[in-house]
Amino acid sequence: MLCSRSTRAVALARRYSNVSSTPSTIQELDRYDNLPQNSRVFSMIQPTGRIHLGNYLGAVKSWRTLSNSNPTSRFIFGIADLHAFTSFKPASELKENRYQAIASLLASGLDTSKCILYFQSAVPEHSELSWFLTCMTSMGQLNRMTQWKSKAQQSQTSSITDEKVMESTKAGVFCYPALQAADILLYRSTHVPVGDDQSQHLELCRNLAKLFNNTYGVDYFPLPKTLLTPAKKILSLKNPEKKMSKSDPVQASCVYVTDSPEQIQSKIRKATTDSIQGDWSFDPVERPGVSNLINIISGLTNESIEETVASVQHLKDHKGLKDYVSELIINEFSDKRQLYDELLKNKDYLDHVCKEGRDSAREVASKNLGEIKSIVGMD
Amino acid sequence: MLCSRSTRAVALARRYSNVSSTPSTIQELDRYDNLPQNSRVFSMIQPTGRIHLGNYLGAVKSWRTLSNSNPTSRFIFGIADLHAFTSFKPASELKENRYQAIASLLASGLDTSKCILYFQSAVPEHSELSWFLTCMTSMGQLNRMTQWKSKAQQSQTSSITDEKVMESTKAGVFCYPALQAADILLYRSTHVPVGDDQSQHLELCRNLAKLFNNTYGVDYFPLPKTLLTPAKKILSLKNPEKKMSKSDPVQASCVYVTDSPEQIQSKIRKATTDSIQGDWSFDPVERPGVSNLINIISGLTNESIEETVASVQHLKDHKGLKDYVSELIINEFSDKRQLYDELLKNKDYLDHVCKEGRDSAREVASKNLGEIKSIVGMD
Repeated sequence: MLCSRSTRAVALARRYSNVSSTPSTIQELDRYDNLPQNSRVFSMIQPTGRIHLGNYLGAVKSWRTLSNSNPTSRFIFGIADLHAFTSFKPASELKENRYQAIASLLASGLDTSKCILYFQSAVPEHSELSWFLTCMTSMGQLNRMTQWKSKAQQSQTSSITDEKVMESTKAGVFCYPALQAADILLYRSTHVPVGDDQSQHLELCRNLAKLFNNTYGVDYFPLPKTLLTPAKKILSLKNPEKKMSKSDPVQASCVYVTDSPEQIQSKIRKATTDSIQGDWSFDPVERPGVSNLINIISGLTNESIEETVASVQHLKDHKGLKDYVSELIINEFSDKRQLYDELLKNKDYLDHVCKEGRDSAREVASKNLGEIKSIVGMD
Repeated sequence: MLCSRSTRAVALARRYSNVSSTPSTIQELDRYDNLPQNSRVFSMIQPTGRIHLGNYLGAVKSWRTLSNSNPTSRFIFGIADLHAFTSFKPASELKENRYQAIASLLASGLDTSKCILYFQSAVPEHSELSWFLTCMTSMGQLNRMTQWKSKAQQSQTSSITDEKVMESTKAGVFCYPALQAADILLYRSTHVPVGDDQSQHLELCRNLAKLFNNTYGVDYFPLPKTLLTPAKKILSLKNPEKKMSKSDPVQASCVYVTDSPEQIQSKIRKATTDSIQGDWSFDPVERPGVSNLINIISGLTNESIEETVASVQHLKDHKGLKDYVSELIINEFSDKRQLYDELLKNKDYLDHVCKEGRDSAREVASKNLGEIKSIVGMD
């Protein structure tokens, strides 16, 4: 059963679900199960290599659900390799990460007949529109973005006014929200499934869309709405205060789509929980580890948190709960792991898929950028 | 005859000629009359509309000389409309300015069989490479550029640390030196004919080329050298402390390639000079107006300042000097004005020329960007 939660607990619980994000007005969001006909939905994922449970339940699974169940809408899902360039990677690593990312998306069941899958860097119109929007964004707007500070590994109180930050920070880390706005607006997207951590960037994107429309007296860009999806924010298995992340130095904190059943079981068994006895409860403050596991179950079974809590009460102890979680993950990933391995061996096929995706994305992007250039007088 | 000049005078005189710029080491420059075989020379001009005497003697005439006299080298001359986007213009004005710019370049005798003439915005690889370089440039490097401060209409002592500057300054005004570096490096340019005011940006460009080569262990980008040309820095006719500029509110301060003989004569007659009697002398400190006229003559006749000073001694008074200058300008511009008018009436032809230029530029740019993407692991 659900515990009664303090205000702090509610705030903390927002970490667990993208659904709980609260955009400033109700007009700015739509629910995934109520997507209007003929929408254009855009999202991206970073090419950090093979995807993990956090990526899967946090984005990819809901992309699949959305694109499979809304035949009149257009879904454009990109691999954000231009954004990845904001932090240096050796060429061979970036290249391999890109292959792993596309293989992961295909293995996760995304169907290229129902969505466009492509690499951002293969569509030059992203960079082109980014420049136009960079010329319309003030330095102050970018400095108010909280994410660039964490990316620059600075405290939230530090700012561009700090000389040391400026020397150690590349301009790409500061300017990328303008590129992100370009990513979205390039396809005249109507909906973007984003979590809390991106709501400030989406707000900037909407502001730039408004500014462009007002400046040129047009109604060209729709103001993209947040799309509330059943995506989950999955936390680290070892430290359920942080998001699950590939860059976590503790490897057991993160389950990959490519992990063997034995690896999955071993990682879940080591997951930090608690020693509270009695009924299972979803309580991110008092029981963060157990709540993370319940959240994972809910994400995999598509049941609500309440239903999930009820459905696990028969499990006698923490080992029982963990074995249940392991089994669900192993089942969910087994065919995906196999397909991933096969795909990664067939890079010609992956290249072919990427090329087709690029062509489909460019068809939209180049038409739109041509119209944008015409609006600004650059045709 | 040349006056002896104080140190201040020497510093001031640097305003008058691009030749007197002093890059930090001698390896970083070549003289226009000693351009190595098979060089790649790159330059750009802003699309501020029809060109004036300052643009003509400051850039375009030397582009013509260079491209006509070095058949083994490649010349790539762009119209920097992406840079123009850093300050807002209504679409119709930008569009017309772009036509006027290309018509001016063609009317000034640039031969598209000897150089590539194109619009920067028509070659997406500029924006693409710009993003990569923006991710390699630190905020501190950009903040040290003196030009962004004047573009942001701030004093040279103000900086990004000033909150007011940040609110009123668009990010494009801050980031454009990275785009400028991309413009140059995209063609693996070996030489850039730039004036003093751009030497800091060219230094940044060289640093980015070095950083790229070192980061990826390649010798891909040549370090572009400053190309010293006989280009002249022409000053305002009414206020010879400032550069001649289209944005000068005093219209008589600026002679356009499109001005009628009467307009040229009238503007030159009104030029600020002095009431010093006796021999003519080139002395930017004591005689800025007269020195500007002598500099104009030298630019038009291709004679040195010394030769020019000697050749005007027979002219009895200021009116005589001014009439001589007017005649030279009228002669230089007469066929150009006519050709300009014809070209501007034939926009289909201009579109055709731009398309051919774009295709030639893209042939180089897309090959190079493909190689760059392969080097960074994004292919």
